[in-house]
Amino acid sequence: MAKKSFPLSKVYCLIEPGPVVMVTTAGKARANIMTMSWHMMIDFNPPIVGCVISNRNYTFDILMTTKNCVINIPTMELAEKVVGCGNTSGRRIDKFKAFGLTQAAASCIKAPLIDECYANLECKVVDAKMVDRYNLFILEVLKAWIDPLRKDPRTIHHLGRGAFMIAGERIKLPSKMK
Amino acid sequence: MAKKSFPLSKVYCLIEPGPVVMVTTAGKARANIMTMSWHMMIDFNPPIVGCVISNRNYTFDILMTTKNCVINIPTMELAEKVVGCGNTSGRRIDKFKAFGLTQAAASCIKAPLIDECYANLECKVVDAKMVDRYNLFILEVLKAWIDPLRKDPRTIHHLGRGAFMIAGERIKLPSKMK
Repeated sequence: MAKKSFPLSKVYCLIEPGPVVMVTTAGKARANIMTMSWHMMIDFNPPIVGCVISNRNYTFDILMTTKNCVINIPTMELAEKVVGCGNTSGRRIDKFKAFGLTQAAASCIKAPLIDECYANLECKVVDAKMVDRYNLFILEVLKAWIDPLRKDPRTIHHLGRGAFMIAGERIKLPSKMK
Repeated sequence: MAKKSFPLSKVYCLIEPGPVVMVTTAGKARANIMTMSWHMMIDFNPPIVGCVISNRNYTFDILMTTKNCVINIPTMELAEKVVGCGNTSGRRIDKFKAFGLTQAAASCIKAPLIDECYANLECKVVDAKMVDRYNLFILEVLKAWIDPLRKDPRTIHHLGRGAFMIAGERIKLPSKMK
C-alpha cells in the first residue's frame, strides 16, 4: 500500500475516536503483533500516546527491551485478522505469517509497519514510570504514515467479548475544539 | 431517564470503543460539564480509567479540589449540546442551564449525573501523580448506571476540528479477548 507521510500535529485525529489498533514490535526471534484497545492521546505535538499493555503479553517484554513499537490502525476488511492476532500469542506463532500480513520497514525505529493497515504511527517509549503500577506506557509518535486514497476509514471499535462497532456516518458541527 | 445499576466488571465495554464523554464536577458556585475525548481503560475490576484534562480547564481546578467526577456518555441526539459544552467555559456560564441538561444525584459522590446521557460512571481520583507532568488523572469507577432501554447506542467519536464519527453497525467475531 503506497503511504504518504502524515503530519504529527494531526495524529490525535486518528487516535481520539478510539479504534482498535495493532501494535507491532521487533522481537529477537521475530516481529510480533498485538491487538489493543486501551490507549489515548496525552498531548498534541509532538503526539504523546498512553497505552496499557498487560505484562502477560509477549509484546510487553519486547517493548520493555526495545522501547520501539508501531501503532497500526486497521479497518473492517482486516477484522478477522485483528481478532486472530488477539486470540494468539507471539510466543508460539509468527503472526505476520499466520495471518498473511505484510511487514514494511519503518523509517525511524526497528519495529515493522503492517502494510495492510491504513495508518501507521512509529513510536518510542518516552516514559515507563507507570509500567510497574498500571502497565501504562507513555509513547511519543516519531513519524506517521497514511494511505492517501482511503477516505472515511471504517475503523473497528471494541465493545467487549467479540462484539465490535464499525465506524458509521460522519457529521460536522461548529466546534471550536482542536 | 430511568437508569439501572450497571456491573462494574462491564464498564470497559462502555469506554473501550472511544466515545466522546461529558465530565461533570461539583464546583463551589455550580456544577460544571466538560467535553472530553482523551481517556482510556487501565484496569477491569474495579474499573480504572485514565484521562487527560488540561490545567486550563475549569474542571481541572474542581477535580483537583473535590477528587470527584462523573463520566457521562452521550449519544448523537445530544451532539449539539456536547459541542456547546466544549466551546464554552464553566468559569463564565452554568452549562446545565445554558444547554438545557438535567442534573441527577449520584449515589457515591457529590458531582451530578447528566440525566440525558445513556450511561453514567461515578468516579473518584485515586492517583494524581501524573497530573503535574501530563494532566493525567487516574480514576476509579465506584458506581455505574445505564439506560436499560437503549440498545446499540449511537455514540459520538471525535475526529478533530468539529468532525465526528457516529457509531455504526455492530458485528460479532469469535474473539477470546475479554
